[in-house]
Amino acid sequence: MKTIRLQDIIAAKKVVARFLKQTPLIHYPELSDRLGFQAYIKHENHHPTGSFKVRGGLNFMHHLPQAQRKKGVITATRGNHGQSIAYAAGQFGVKATVVVPHGNNPEKNSAMRAFGAELIEHGADFDEALELCEKLQVERGLYYVHPCMELGLFQGVGTYSLEIFESLPNVDAIIVPIGGGSGCCGAITVSKAINRNVKVIGVQAENAPAIYQSWKAGERVVTDSCDTIADGLATRTPFPLPLSIINKGIHDIVLLSEAELEEGIRMALRWTHNLAEGAGASTIAAAHKLTDTLAGKNVVMVMSGGNLDTETLKSVLGYQL
Amino acid sequence: MKTIRLQDIIAAKKVVARFLKQTPLIHYPELSDRLGFQAYIKHENHHPTGSFKVRGGLNFMHHLPQAQRKKGVITATRGNHGQSIAYAAGQFGVKATVVVPHGNNPEKNSAMRAFGAELIEHGADFDEALELCEKLQVERGLYYVHPCMELGLFQGVGTYSLEIFESLPNVDAIIVPIGGGSGCCGAITVSKAINRNVKVIGVQAENAPAIYQSWKAGERVVTDSCDTIADGLATRTPFPLPLSIINKGIHDIVLLSEAELEEGIRMALRWTHNLAEGAGASTIAAAHKLTDTLAGKNVVMVMSGGNLDTETLKSVLGYQL
Repeated sequence: MKTIRLQDIIAAKKVVARFLKQTPLIHYPELSDRLGFQAYIKHENHHPTGSFKVRGGLNFMHHLPQAQRKKGVITATRGNHGQSIAYAAGQFGVKATVVVPHGNNPEKNSAMRAFGAELIEHGADFDEALELCEKLQVERGLYYVHPCMELGLFQGVGTYSLEIFESLPNVDAIIVPIGGGSGCCGAITVSKAINRNVKVIGVQAENAPAIYQSWKAGERVVTDSCDTIADGLATRTPFPLPLSIINKGIHDIVLLSEAELEEGIRMALRWTHNLAEGAGASTIAAAHKLTDTLAGKNVVMVMSGGNLDTETLKSVLGYQL
Repeated sequence: MKTIRLQDIIAAKKVVARFLKQTPLIHYPELSDRLGFQAYIKHENHHPTGSFKVRGGLNFMHHLPQAQRKKGVITATRGNHGQSIAYAAGQFGVKATVVVPHGNNPEKNSAMRAFGAELIEHGADFDEALELCEKLQVERGLYYVHPCMELGLFQGVGTYSLEIFESLPNVDAIIVPIGGGSGCCGAITVSKAINRNVKVIGVQAENAPAIYQSWKAGERVVTDSCDTIADGLATRTPFPLPLSIINKGIHDIVLLSEAELEEGIRMALRWTHNLAEGAGASTIAAAHKLTDTLAGKNVVMVMSGGNLDTETLKSVLGYQL
């Protein structure tokens, strides 16, 4: 099977750096006091698209042959992947079509449109959107950018883990949210190559535990639903590429309840003054459950994105901050 | 009178770059559509201390003579200036003492302590805190870092304006919050030197209009109060150094009501997914009042800081988002 190599992530770093500033890795002394370890946050929410995925989109687009760039690309998404593809396509002058299911969050839709994508609303759920996407791919000669099987995306996303090691060579643990798994695969690949002692710890939602269950079972488990406030973690179907890397290299996976995910968003606001989406804040929430094993260590929590829609924010803040 | 020169800001850039990543200047397409001009935000809220002031603190500390570094520094503050000095002192191994009035925001106090400052709570208001500060300066041989008269601070703070011109050479207007005035003075100094056609537009609170009134009157006006939700704008007493630069170089100053400042915080959350403090969001709120004059231009709004305490956030979000 194809896999991800450090050298490809290093090559992707040059591509990504043409478009994006390196995101800060910030040490938070107050959070460190609370957690009992040195708490660092990798601010992937500081990208122009508000999430880490844009690294992958840019690297993918860079490698897309010129002839295909002229025809355009298509993908199905509910959010950050679509913004990444729309943004990257815009940078390369490529036409992007994004299919979303009816009822998709209107704020995410308008963000994708604003980055220049043609947005098509179709179908009752993601699977029906996907069907149209595959149909149009054939009819229009578009390249279908699969969010979980495209090596170029994984290589690009991996660059944030490379930056973590540059900024903090003596990192002990990296906590990453797992949705499709690309971020986690980057952290594993980079850590294994640079320092095998670094522990990569994944985070999933109790309500969307497909990769957790697959990892535990040693075989692919598809769940019936993935209904979580953290849409960046909402995956029902693990794909072979990420699963093979995660199975070999993950140290642990923490499962969070919906209440814990909401508390994570509030903690991110209170202790880092950053608006994080559910997946982005999940690493802080997970860290609270790991204080014993991480005591005294240098721990990086990846804040993968900040695209929290206002309705969810209001609902989350209905509780005390 | 001493003043600020481009060459000193350029020199400060080297100092600042040793400690801080360049902050991103992000273009927001959706906000641009709403405002009718190309909307860019300079994210000074992305610093480790959550505000632009840290640039000044670092440059100041760099220039502080070694003998004085050994004795330590002192300042009086209610927030971001204190975090800047505490952080910069920590980087240079200097002891920092910060005096705050009783009742100062406990979240700001704990942040300054976490950066390593000795925090002394004294007096009923800022003026009484200042008295102790001046007393301890003499008794303990500390250097008193005045937030509005220290050239090193202004030069350091000016570096964000230099970065704006590097990122967006064809900028037409820069909107900056005015509290003490250091950020605004940097924008004016850099703009005048690089492109005199660039309009620097300041923002003050209707409830704290000291610099606005001084600018209008052509002489220093001290106000009786400065009670605003945007503590970064809360200045009663303009100081000669910033006033002389602002009087000569500001294009306009926009005054905002408390309701408009609160709306700015909500707009920042909605349209940029960033938590901004009152002053930090004030530039977006001000931009809404300037859509006619700025139509079609390249406009940079400085998000000066993100240190919004949780009580204020909850209160602001009590309204609809």
